[in-house]
Amino acid sequence: MTTLAITGGQVLLPDMTVTRADVLIDQERGEILELGDDLAADADETLDASDSLVTPGFVNGHCHVSMTLLRGYADDKPLDAWLQEDIWPAEGELTPDDIRIGAELGLLEMIKSGTTAFADMYFELPEIADAVERAGLRARLGHGVVTVVKDDEGAREDAQTSLDVAAEYDGAADGRISTAFMPHSLTTVGEEYLDEFVPKAREAGLPIHYHANETADEVTPIVDERGVRPLAYAAEKGMLEPQDFVAHGVHVDESEIGLLAEAGTGVIHCPASNMKLASGMAPVQRMLEEGVSVGLGTDGAASNNDLSMLDEARDAAMIGKLAAEDASAVPAEAVVEMMTQGSADAIDIDAGRLEDGAPADLAVLDLEKPHLTPAHDLVSHLAYAAAAADVRHTICDGQVLMRDREVLTLEESAVRERASEAAASLVARAEE
Amino acid sequence: MTTLAITGGQVLLPDMTVTRADVLIDQERGEILELGDDLAADADETLDASDSLVTPGFVNGHCHVSMTLLRGYADDKPLDAWLQEDIWPAEGELTPDDIRIGAELGLLEMIKSGTTAFADMYFELPEIADAVERAGLRARLGHGVVTVVKDDEGAREDAQTSLDVAAEYDGAADGRISTAFMPHSLTTVGEEYLDEFVPKAREAGLPIHYHANETADEVTPIVDERGVRPLAYAAEKGMLEPQDFVAHGVHVDESEIGLLAEAGTGVIHCPASNMKLASGMAPVQRMLEEGVSVGLGTDGAASNNDLSMLDEARDAAMIGKLAAEDASAVPAEAVVEMMTQGSADAIDIDAGRLEDGAPADLAVLDLEKPHLTPAHDLVSHLAYAAAAADVRHTICDGQVLMRDREVLTLEESAVRERASEAAASLVARAEE
Ligand SMILES: [Zn+2]
Ligand SMILES: [Zn+2]
Repeated sequence: MTTLAITGGQVLLPDMTVTRADVLIDQERGEILELGDDLAADADETLDASDSLVTPGFVNGHCHVSMTLLRGYADDKPLDAWLQEDIWPAEGELTPDDIRIGAELGLLEMIKSGTTAFADMYFELPEIADAVERAGLRARLGHGVVTVVKDDEGAREDAQTSLDVAAEYDGAADGRISTAFMPHSLTTVGEEYLDEFVPKAREAGLPIHYHANETADEVTPIVDERGVRPLAYAAEKGMLEPQDFVAHGVHVDESEIGLLAEAGTGVIHCPASNMKLASGMAPVQRMLEEGVSVGLGTDGAASNNDLSMLDEARDAAMIGKLAAEDASAVPAEAVVEMMTQGSADAIDIDAGRLEDGAPADLAVLDLEKPHLTPAHDLVSHLAYAAAAADVRHTICDGQVLMRDREVLTLEESAVRERASEAAASLVARAEE
Repeated sequence: MTTLAITGGQVLLPDMTVTRADVLIDQERGEILELGDDLAADADETLDASDSLVTPGFVNGHCHVSMTLLRGYADDKPLDAWLQEDIWPAEGELTPDDIRIGAELGLLEMIKSGTTAFADMYFELPEIADAVERAGLRARLGHGVVTVVKDDEGAREDAQTSLDVAAEYDGAADGRISTAFMPHSLTTVGEEYLDEFVPKAREAGLPIHYHANETADEVTPIVDERGVRPLAYAAEKGMLEPQDFVAHGVHVDESEIGLLAEAGTGVIHCPASNMKLASGMAPVQRMLEEGVSVGLGTDGAASNNDLSMLDEARDAAMIGKLAAEDASAVPAEAVVEMMTQGSADAIDIDAGRLEDGAPADLAVLDLEKPHLTPAHDLVSHLAYAAAAADVRHTICDGQVLMRDREVLTLEESAVRERASEAAASLVARAEE
């Protein structure tokens, strides 16, 4: 057994209290052995956390990680024009290499902002899995299926790919990678393909992840055509199980909040994306009150434009109060819970809490900063004031991914350089 | 003449384009001499800006800087309870020393996040002015007047203090400090005191700064009692002049947007505070369309909870799109303009632009970061992805306030330590 002790810090516990403790980790099993006093002597190696806050590694519940290549490429456009004139043409030019390079850039940014696990929907999954394996994070990956622009053969092939890669990569990277079947949304995948492939996903034991109720335009056609709300339709199709999770859930009504709570299906709230694309404000306070499992996600970098979960937590608290018209709604504890245990539960990954026997996924934040002074309330600081650059160390599965802001699993300057070149070339091709 | 050259960077010009240039500064006059190629040879000193973006120093148009001592002290409470149970009792215990210490902490945070100028409303102005003089920033300071909780003598004394300190400190710190008469708001200062003291402020040549239309509760009593909207009332009272500026402007109707545009009165939009206190969404896109002079402010740290203008710019773009229900509203260029020239114009300070002859107030941001890669659009990065910690150097009035993240005018660890002690003691007294 090789052990690592994280020493001298203040530790955020699952009940959102903070206590002074060392954290002893079994690096081979990737597990927390013990939280307690003076554990350095028992450890093979130590990592300093003095004047620091030790938190669970953050869990990004919904991302399209390779879209970092399109960060800042086309902002401030109406959703339709943005997708049709900019994003889709650029994505059409993406090569497998681009997708691996974009993933590396996104993973680098995640590690530097304390994220240790994420759920991702994109294509060329083997490239993303390869980057995740090397970077050292935990992930639930899937191939996003879109059928509406394809002929029947193409549609069925796309859905089959989503099943195949999910089966192939489930448990990859020593179990750090899990997968899901990922139909893109209820409006971009035809009913016949849901009818055919959802049961196959169930047979394969796969959870299902999809975008739902992101914009009003996504709700209206379903209500008009079928006479039911989108999540009632999803339930009919067998896509509202406890292991499933949807992204966004902005335009959900009370009946749908009830369905989500009853089913135990997770919702990944993406406040930055919902604001930047003017999609609307999810009723997060209502969901929390009804016991819906709510996590947080950044969505892709093109609609955010960063992958920091600390930004996302702040955005969630801010927009949650606006939506509820109540300054006490979606408080600091709720968003910190959402970006740790909440996301982990929603995407069904064992992570997001610091306690004996839990996976050793942690972030250590430097508290010796003017913007984190004074220290009245460290949970408030996490929600409202801390920033990506405050993260000193990032640990996943017992391995140190970043030490004193130096990423150990990816070569930062090389990743940045490759990404810059790939992005420039991609845009040149897309605009040709 | 002592000169400083900022070399090798990309420079953000007033028209929101970016060009490669060195910036040559006359340090004695505190002015930009020239933007051009290869200016290092002409300079006594150089500051490296390679792989960096050189921007105007950010201008925080509305703050209560000493409230950093209450950062995170009481979050997630309805506005009334927050003020009455937490903020006012704590503020009642503030000593002049506390206010100076809180100001130092806030100024330290401003320098570290690239802010070079701000407008501030608080009390014990001499303490704040002293901190500003030493820290090296530019500021428009004022004493906030509240009459509703005072007897006539106390109310008149408070208003007179606001006039007196404004007269005394205008032009202090070699001209870096200017002042204003600052009645707290249209509902917390009685009409008779506005009638008496606004003309006196005009005689003294002082601009007027106040909170206006922050919450619906601030609008209704004025409409009910007087039959006019708050800003029409302000105009009647002579408080809507081109040199005046209001904070918030959340609940303004079209008639008031028209009044602001016609008068040339500035509005300081405070999106984070408006979200955190659930005050509502200001119609910023409509104000911009009508030609209102709009700047950005953080408000106090207790309702934010940081003082980074980069966060504020991102928040402004995000909430601006939500309010307008249009992803193309309040674009990156608009919020970058708002946090530089926009705020400077609104608070009537000569700053916020990089060109020959302009004040030498600058921030230099490191672009070699994963979250700022790739570099499709640097203005987008400033609005959506850059963070306080990306600021390498901060220069105000030709003086280097921070070099390679080391603040030169304040001793960071001592300021943090004093602030922590003062905050702990303050809270102990308030909760006694
Ligand atoms: Zn998405
Ligand atoms: Zn204020």
